[in-house]
Amino acid sequence: MTILDEHMLEIRVRFFEVDSMGFLHHSRFLQYFELGRTELLRARGHCYADIERQGYCFAVTQAQVKYRAPAHYDDLLQLTTRLTRQTEVRFEHTYELRRDGQLLAEGQTTIACLNRQGKVVQIPETLRVKS
Amino acid sequence: MTILDEHMLEIRVRFFEVDSMGFLHHSRFLQYFELGRTELLRARGHCYADIERQGYCFAVTQAQVKYRAPAHYDDLLQLTTRLTRQTEVRFEHTYELRRDGQLLAEGQTTIACLNRQGKVVQIPETLRVKS
Amino acid sequence: MTILDEHMLEIRVRFFEVDSMGFLHHSRFLQYFELGRTELLRARGHCYADIERQGYCFAVTQAQVKYRAPAHYDDLLQLTTRLTRQTEVRFEHTYELRRDGQLLAEGQTTIACLNRQGKVVQIPETLRVKS
Amino acid sequence: MTILDEHMLEIRVRFFEVDSMGFLHHSRFLQYFELGRTELLRARGHCYADIERQGYCFAVTQAQVKYRAPAHYDDLLQLTTRLTRQTEVRFEHTYELRRDGQLLAEGQTTIACLNRQGKVVQIPETLRVKS
Repeated sequence: MTILDEHMLEIRVRFFEVDSMGFLHHSRFLQYFELGRTELLRARGHCYADIERQGYCFAVTQAQVKYRAPAHYDDLLQLTTRLTRQTEVRFEHTYELRRDGQLLAEGQTTIACLNRQGKVVQIPETLRVKS
Repeated sequence: MTILDEHMLEIRVRFFEVDSMGFLHHSRFLQYFELGRTELLRARGHCYADIERQGYCFAVTQAQVKYRAPAHYDDLLQLTTRLTRQTEVRFEHTYELRRDGQLLAEGQTTIACLNRQGKVVQIPETLRVKS
Repeated sequence: MTILDEHMLEIRVRFFEVDSMGFLHHSRFLQYFELGRTELLRARGHCYADIERQGYCFAVTQAQVKYRAPAHYDDLLQLTTRLTRQTEVRFEHTYELRRDGQLLAEGQTTIACLNRQGKVVQIPETLRVKS
Repeated sequence: MTILDEHMLEIRVRFFEVDSMGFLHHSRFLQYFELGRTELLRARGHCYADIERQGYCFAVTQAQVKYRAPAHYDDLLQLTTRLTRQTEVRFEHTYELRRDGQLLAEGQTTIACLNRQGKVVQIPETLRVKS
């Protein structure tokens, strides 16, 4: 796996994100991964809100998660987000969510760059990662 | 693909489920799939709340989604949930989310049966689908 | 209290809406009230998505909730939404959420009509309730 | 207004918390207030997860919000949480949510201390604020 870019983010599990079993709900992991992508961008000097204002958006076209162990309310988690592939129009990221070293989940997503009309377009040059 | 059981559910997209692009947020699809599993169970005469009261829970161990086209606020969607595999301790489901016939997303999940201590246990006999 | 319009909606509590105490999270009640307003509008022949497309939106400017008893996962609830006041630019609604007659919560909200620039504007004549 | 305790928390608005108008959804403010209460407790050396493990929970019995101005995706907000009243069994808090000094919302909640059976009980002595 090529790693084009990488970022680590700490996330504390919020009370209302946890289900009646006391576990972080499995749909929340995709929301955490989105936070990871946002902060990966920010670490490179970009702001997703600005990208949207310029008329672009990134739509998730595919997502996969493997859940290894539950996270609980108030857990402090470490999310590693890696950019592993870029094409003219798509980014692929992988994710590892850990608590004190223990792997809780692994994920992978593909996002496509769209314009305001929802058409797939080239990723702006400034957002592309140079090797 | 074997289909052991199948259920169709209509879901109307709620205002707060939609993101600033006007699209149903990609994490919500996993929540809709969960609704599909609940109603598939109910159609067979089971109630997930009762299963929990009996000391079991079903934890998602793996999920995949392919997003084909966006859903919007107030769209009336048709979700088909299919049980495609059962082992002693796991169920696999697949999902198709459509709007008036158009395929918006496909998904697949694996759920494992846990006891109150979070240990993987045999699925109760009454919940297993007979071929 | 004047009742200008009234609507009853059944809502089933979803698994991921419930917190680790097994109770419908208190923030979810505001989301249910929003569903009630949407369906009150629909019962009068209006669609909130269309109202947005015409360049208007309704922003909540004030909300109050009194929680009487908890709702649980899979409970089938009855929400009564009442339009109790309209001015040139605002609607006031009240809400009662019940389960089999038992009152679980009461609420009240004020919503203001905004244009695309976020400025308070007159409610379109077609949306106003005639006495 | 008596201020028995006070805490300031920074919260960045997440993408999936914003609605199709681009505004932080009005139900999210109650979730932010909950974060404020949690961090107010933590600043005093308490952990809400531990309180739950000891068999207590705090249930919201009443909430009010006045929305002054919208918050947007990626806004960095400042939430001030104040404990303004305590009785044998209840706490009252007030909230101010600001962005760079501008007041976006004010809120007030009452929470009651419950035991595992859902009965209102005395707040444990260690959690009470001494004047």
